[in-house]
Amino acid sequence: MSQGIAHASVGEQFEGFLLIKSSDKGVASNGKPFLTIVFRDKSGEIEAKLWEVTKDDEEVFTPESVVNVQGEIRQFRGKPQLNVRQIRLASAADGIHPEDFMEKAPIEVVEMQEYMTKIIFEMRNPNIQRIVRYFLKKYEHELFTYPAATKNHHEYAAGLAHHVVSMLKLGKQLVELYPDVDADLLYAGIILHDIGKVKELSSPMSPSYTLEGKLLGHITIMVDEVKEAANELGIEGEEVLLLQHLILSHHGKSEWGSPKPPQIREAEVLHLIDLVDAKMNMMNRALDKVKPGEFTDRIYPLENRSFYKPKIE
Amino acid sequence: MSQGIAHASVGEQFEGFLLIKSSDKGVASNGKPFLTIVFRDKSGEIEAKLWEVTKDDEEVFTPESVVNVQGEIRQFRGKPQLNVRQIRLASAADGIHPEDFMEKAPIEVVEMQEYMTKIIFEMRNPNIQRIVRYFLKKYEHELFTYPAATKNHHEYAAGLAHHVVSMLKLGKQLVELYPDVDADLLYAGIILHDIGKVKELSSPMSPSYTLEGKLLGHITIMVDEVKEAANELGIEGEEVLLLQHLILSHHGKSEWGSPKPPQIREAEVLHLIDLVDAKMNMMNRALDKVKPGEFTDRIYPLENRSFYKPKIE
Amino acid sequence: MSQGIAHASVGEQFEGFLLIKSSDKGVASNGKPFLTIVFRDKSGEIEAKLWEVTKDDEEVFTPESVVNVQGEIRQFRGKPQLNVRQIRLASAADGIHPEDFMEKAPIEVVEMQEYMTKIIFEMRNPNIQRIVRYFLKKYEHELFTYPAATKNHHEYAAGLAHHVVSMLKLGKQLVELYPDVDADLLYAGIILHDIGKVKELSSPMSPSYTLEGKLLGHITIMVDEVKEAANELGIEGEEVLLLQHLILSHHGKSEWGSPKPPQIREAEVLHLIDLVDAKMNMMNRALDKVKPGEFTDRIYPLENRSFYKPKIE
Amino acid sequence: MSQGIAHASVGEQFEGFLLIKSSDKGVASNGKPFLTIVFRDKSGEIEAKLWEVTKDDEEVFTPESVVNVQGEIRQFRGKPQLNVRQIRLASAADGIHPEDFMEKAPIEVVEMQEYMTKIIFEMRNPNIQRIVRYFLKKYEHELFTYPAATKNHHEYAAGLAHHVVSMLKLGKQLVELYPDVDADLLYAGIILHDIGKVKELSSPMSPSYTLEGKLLGHITIMVDEVKEAANELGIEGEEVLLLQHLILSHHGKSEWGSPKPPQIREAEVLHLIDLVDAKMNMMNRALDKVKPGEFTDRIYPLENRSFYKPKIE
Amino acid sequence: MSQGIAHASVGEQFEGFLLIKSSDKGVASNGKPFLTIVFRDKSGEIEAKLWEVTKDDEEVFTPESVVNVQGEIRQFRGKPQLNVRQIRLASAADGIHPEDFMEKAPIEVVEMQEYMTKIIFEMRNPNIQRIVRYFLKKYEHELFTYPAATKNHHEYAAGLAHHVVSMLKLGKQLVELYPDVDADLLYAGIILHDIGKVKELSSPMSPSYTLEGKLLGHITIMVDEVKEAANELGIEGEEVLLLQHLILSHHGKSEWGSPKPPQIREAEVLHLIDLVDAKMNMMNRALDKVKPGEFTDRIYPLENRSFYKPKIE
Amino acid sequence: MSQGIAHASVGEQFEGFLLIKSSDKGVASNGKPFLTIVFRDKSGEIEAKLWEVTKDDEEVFTPESVVNVQGEIRQFRGKPQLNVRQIRLASAADGIHPEDFMEKAPIEVVEMQEYMTKIIFEMRNPNIQRIVRYFLKKYEHELFTYPAATKNHHEYAAGLAHHVVSMLKLGKQLVELYPDVDADLLYAGIILHDIGKVKELSSPMSPSYTLEGKLLGHITIMVDEVKEAANELGIEGEEVLLLQHLILSHHGKSEWGSPKPPQIREAEVLHLIDLVDAKMNMMNRALDKVKPGEFTDRIYPLENRSFYKPKIE
Repeated sequence: MSQGIAHASVGEQFEGFLLIKSSDKGVASNGKPFLTIVFRDKSGEIEAKLWEVTKDDEEVFTPESVVNVQGEIRQFRGKPQLNVRQIRLASAADGIHPEDFMEKAPIEVVEMQEYMTKIIFEMRNPNIQRIVRYFLKKYEHELFTYPAATKNHHEYAAGLAHHVVSMLKLGKQLVELYPDVDADLLYAGIILHDIGKVKELSSPMSPSYTLEGKLLGHITIMVDEVKEAANELGIEGEEVLLLQHLILSHHGKSEWGSPKPPQIREAEVLHLIDLVDAKMNMMNRALDKVKPGEFTDRIYPLENRSFYKPKIE
Repeated sequence: MSQGIAHASVGEQFEGFLLIKSSDKGVASNGKPFLTIVFRDKSGEIEAKLWEVTKDDEEVFTPESVVNVQGEIRQFRGKPQLNVRQIRLASAADGIHPEDFMEKAPIEVVEMQEYMTKIIFEMRNPNIQRIVRYFLKKYEHELFTYPAATKNHHEYAAGLAHHVVSMLKLGKQLVELYPDVDADLLYAGIILHDIGKVKELSSPMSPSYTLEGKLLGHITIMVDEVKEAANELGIEGEEVLLLQHLILSHHGKSEWGSPKPPQIREAEVLHLIDLVDAKMNMMNRALDKVKPGEFTDRIYPLENRSFYKPKIE
Repeated sequence: MSQGIAHASVGEQFEGFLLIKSSDKGVASNGKPFLTIVFRDKSGEIEAKLWEVTKDDEEVFTPESVVNVQGEIRQFRGKPQLNVRQIRLASAADGIHPEDFMEKAPIEVVEMQEYMTKIIFEMRNPNIQRIVRYFLKKYEHELFTYPAATKNHHEYAAGLAHHVVSMLKLGKQLVELYPDVDADLLYAGIILHDIGKVKELSSPMSPSYTLEGKLLGHITIMVDEVKEAANELGIEGEEVLLLQHLILSHHGKSEWGSPKPPQIREAEVLHLIDLVDAKMNMMNRALDKVKPGEFTDRIYPLENRSFYKPKIE
Repeated sequence: MSQGIAHASVGEQFEGFLLIKSSDKGVASNGKPFLTIVFRDKSGEIEAKLWEVTKDDEEVFTPESVVNVQGEIRQFRGKPQLNVRQIRLASAADGIHPEDFMEKAPIEVVEMQEYMTKIIFEMRNPNIQRIVRYFLKKYEHELFTYPAATKNHHEYAAGLAHHVVSMLKLGKQLVELYPDVDADLLYAGIILHDIGKVKELSSPMSPSYTLEGKLLGHITIMVDEVKEAANELGIEGEEVLLLQHLILSHHGKSEWGSPKPPQIREAEVLHLIDLVDAKMNMMNRALDKVKPGEFTDRIYPLENRSFYKPKIE
Repeated sequence: MSQGIAHASVGEQFEGFLLIKSSDKGVASNGKPFLTIVFRDKSGEIEAKLWEVTKDDEEVFTPESVVNVQGEIRQFRGKPQLNVRQIRLASAADGIHPEDFMEKAPIEVVEMQEYMTKIIFEMRNPNIQRIVRYFLKKYEHELFTYPAATKNHHEYAAGLAHHVVSMLKLGKQLVELYPDVDADLLYAGIILHDIGKVKELSSPMSPSYTLEGKLLGHITIMVDEVKEAANELGIEGEEVLLLQHLILSHHGKSEWGSPKPPQIREAEVLHLIDLVDAKMNMMNRALDKVKPGEFTDRIYPLENRSFYKPKIE
Repeated sequence: MSQGIAHASVGEQFEGFLLIKSSDKGVASNGKPFLTIVFRDKSGEIEAKLWEVTKDDEEVFTPESVVNVQGEIRQFRGKPQLNVRQIRLASAADGIHPEDFMEKAPIEVVEMQEYMTKIIFEMRNPNIQRIVRYFLKKYEHELFTYPAATKNHHEYAAGLAHHVVSMLKLGKQLVELYPDVDADLLYAGIILHDIGKVKELSSPMSPSYTLEGKLLGHITIMVDEVKEAANELGIEGEEVLLLQHLILSHHGKSEWGSPKPPQIREAEVLHLIDLVDAKMNMMNRALDKVKPGEFTDRIYPLENRSFYKPKIE
């Protein structure tokens, strides 16, 4: 069981702490209320039913609370389900925090912060540098806690920062191979392109879309903020327009949410790097779960393909 | 000839004032330089060649200057061409202005200003009213000189205001028929939705796209400006977000340049009214040029259709 | 409960009359037959199971019959279900009619009839007027009982007439704003465009598609009928062809079922008005069900969007 | 030269009779009028210029008249052009008819008539047989003079009948291979499916689209006529609906002009046979023009492909 | 029951032999293991549950084994389910073979073999003949046992050969109607086009995709093999390239899996014949299951259409 | 003039050596033959007319021959044209080679050879290494002379090798950033993916498509060759299949010519790297031609976009 709830086999006994991800009330065929709970730990999720629950239970076992559970792994319609025998809220004495149940970026936050600071320090264009610094300061906390997306890729704590750091490394290589690329613009675009997500999503732990996120989206939110920041910092000039364009066009096509396609070299590179890193993250995580000679599950955003893990060394 | 250059027949003699829309230098097969000039008046355009021109001619006959021309209408590759016998720059004494050669909105500017003022006066939500007033004041001059587009529909002086006024009238009817529609939001959306074009386009008379227009586009420009205006006016609250959403979504689909589709009733209505008025403007102007029993030319933005003008009374 | 079955909460007791919309036989895991019944009243629908039914029950509880039911609202797989304790057929003494369980157009039939009569009376082209009158007489009953569609918009008793009347009002406004539009053609097109649905659909109350509806469709059916009516009335001339074209092209594109796109101004206007009224009907009814600050359910024919109801006054 | 005008080489002298396909007036750079004439004979077409023409010439050298021409084949912008030295109208004495200059179906009309008569004679369903006979009689002349299309396939005199006869032969084979196919329905569908073209197109020799053809199209025209014919013949029953469906659906998809897709087996077969025969006609005629080892010109309606003629025996 | 398991009615008793198509283990809500088995015979399939199974049961009741079953037809979620009372493995004494439970081609294998041999014998090009013979010999067994597809059309024992033979007959007719078609190329293309499926699919009885099938596909596999065969047979010349092209292009378009579209006449014909035979097979089998006046189930690969079976004689 | 023919201005005199890219005969309006010649040097191309040419001229001034030309740059229909006064074939004495007139890869061939050799040397899987070596030896000459495409990207001498080397460098960086990627597979895929072009295209200098190229394409050609090479080298095992899959899927989608999409991680990476390097090559070369503050010409394969060159440092 030490591997986590997502790796438990049907028939196995379970005892331990879990985070409640969601909790929905139902009424059974006997007229009694019950709860359908989704538990999670770092390894993933499992569904459970709490039968004949009281009003109290409903109020206690709510999303984002941590509980201690005893039960057995059963199977229900082809999926594992946790049959709960005992359940209680974790107390302060248990020394457990919700964050402990979230998957985390594979790099330490400190290391990522240092890497970004170094990149910004190396920038030569002062206007670009100031704007990037402004946002890194403004959203420092969010950048290192939010996921990069609600699902599909980098959907874990600090996933946003992890995505940015991977892209910066990739960007650095491309600047070396294709030296005409303007490093300052590219790095600034990488750091800023998705920060709007911290306002598009409601929270780092169980993110849903905010009203602003739904009606405007992270791209428009951030294009606005860059303008406001430039006003505040008293910066004028082409840099502001270029940074806005980098953010605006980074989805590559209007069908994908960018009302203007990339029209400067660095914008096209930013779009490509974003694509590469997101795809690598999805493929790698899917392939990690299978053995050589097997195919992964279908990955919806990769055109629903499944990938084969070769047997050759 | 009094009907204007676009209605001249092959073989006819011409004498009068014309605006130079464009002027391009070429070198003839005999090695001598010549100018390909496009002249325009309110009725439309005609091409001409000036053979064996001097350096002086090149510098004098430039775009946006008005000239007096004598010549004959010929035909070249199936299109009329003006064979110039004499040409001279208009002088102050001629009392001629470039604006006289532009097609104009069929309603007087004063009348349109009054109509908009009345609409704004009737608004009940003070935040919306203040933001709309802010922009009407800020862009008063541009709104009543710019076209609504560089081609296809309302592409004439004050076309932007004409488009807005037609849409307001249409909107007023829809509010009566479907009283759940919030009139303030709808009217504000109509007035603001295309104002970004005054920054997207370079000038009212021979508009081309500005750098900002190309890299951001009029939608993004205006969404930004609404936020800045609200900041400046100290307005907070859902109204700002809703107005931004109205502008952002008014093209209806991401493929058509709106990164978010309409998600409030008034945004959908705004999109529909915009569509209806643009289509009516294109159809009406094409049908005005043909006689009953004939088909119009193909209209590219109307799926390249040509329209039949019935013979029945 | 007075608000109707669609508004009942889980746990509530129910007693009253309901219409059987559909009734399907099944065999339970104990080998006994049961019925899955969908009940409806004006507010909407609810599913129920009748366990261990007899042959008699199967023959009695059939679609379009009205019953008196007692039971309790339970929940089954996330949806409310009516747990039936007692059920009996309504008798003549109950004074109940199937029509009482259908949603109705929000305008009275008489009022709609008068409006249409007035519109037809104002027509100036006698050929168009005679053809429209012919159909209003021929399908008078159907026009004021049929829905405009089996689902999505105006899917209630006299929905077809309601759709026509709304479109006429909208059309009248457009004729005023764009006076080149030929009112007679437009109004005739509006009244006739969907009448073919009375032959495409099997009945006003629980409509399914007829063989003719499936193999030809309401557009082709009506284009045929206009020709036959003109023959019968001895009318020749462009009007017949134009009316056929208005009907044929009103879906706007071949992909949407119109083999020819609109090629006269009035056909394009007809298509646009149809679109606007259908969309307004869908949006308004979805927004009526939510509170300010909430989003509606996704509306499939509106590109699966959900709409936000603003909180501002 | 005996092979016809389309096979003439640059530099060759020409003397003979040609049909004027089109004649357009222009004004030369010296101000004199000229005619751009397209001549044709059975082999194809060639363009020519008549310089400095008189009013008389304009009135005499009009489309569909036959002339005797002397001149030389030149080249103009990469295409052959006939340089006319002498031209005169053909007189009665020349014994020449416009039809002699049209490409013809490779089978004799009499043979095609006999084949169709035989097919109809073998029909067992009397209703279907009577309707088909009705149309064969009504449009006998047109069926054996009109092309099947204005371009792409079977675009020659009696091309419509040729297309029908080829499809009937193909249909007969399919009925043998798949005996469940109803022969009467299929043959009737084949004979009737394109007859509407005789009303969609203006004439057999230089066809353009009629108003009815543009606003309704040959499919709708014919679906109407089948209904009218059935009324006139007093025929009721499923046959009428099925024949209408066969015609309506024969383009296969709404995007291709059929508002309903094939929904009976014979309609699907009709659509497939139509496709096969049109494609074979296009490919065969293109391949006839090239030698083994060469590629044909690109064939636009075959997805712009060019086809290779193998060298193997 | 003699009609087979697919025709059994709810409530009926069953006793007989069935093939296990698939068998999946689950754990019931009481913690006990059970098997979900799909049984099949020639008529089709039925699902069943075996409750409280032992380890032995799991190892015995595996796919491709034949069992004797007693039970009753029940209904579960709208579908029939076999309630098993008794089950045992068929023994040698029962004289039952897995093949007896597979649907078969409606023509005898011997007859199909003779037909193909005759076609090959008539070929005049020795290179083509030798290559076709090579493959007929190499894959003789597979060709007459494999289905033509895992679902949709000809998905039964020897379906591949049946598809080839039907296409050859159709091809023979087309060669007669359009004599320019090269018979040898066409017949060779028909015989070879799908043979790659014997390597794409794992087995004739319960086919799944092989790794080679997934990563390369039957088209690429066979294009390779033709080249290898030609090398082995010492054949050079255009025939090899043409045969490769016929196979490569037979899906008609890149979206359908052919990286090159048909570029020789015979390749286009091959593609069309393949389409016609697959469609006829699907339509005929669906229409066989319904009565006159009824519609078939929707057929997914025929654009999800359902087909009407006319009532006329 | 030293900058080359593509940079010559209208009116300038020219004297120097040029390569004839194409030469087409025409007949002038005076009946005399002339040649339309396209000349090229490293800078680009220019068109010219040779009037009143002799039979000898036609035979002498043929594609791929080098000539000495004197003349003047004129303008014809908006494009520069070389007015030839004198022309003669280059002789051995001139010491000029056709290759001198071709654009070349910006890296020396020797350097590229060494880089590839080093990469191959580092491979750890012996099967992959042997197959790659086999092809590098077999096509050594072609790989370092052929372009990577006939237009759009890397369309210059050794462009194929240049594209491979850039991709290898990019691949190396990706392997470092995403260490799960199998370097051997990726590098082998990069080196082999486009080698089929040496058989798809007719020659390195003025490439057209071969018959094999048209009917099979470079992907299919190379997938075949890998199989044949493996047979010849006696290599079996998954490596062969994986290499075939890498080549087969490298266009990413069936619409883009890959019948199977990437289904192993390295195939997806190969596809992405190919995309990145092709796009960078196109953007960089277009941006090299413009000054800061300008837009490039539209680049068709980059969705017809034009790119802006920023003014900021």
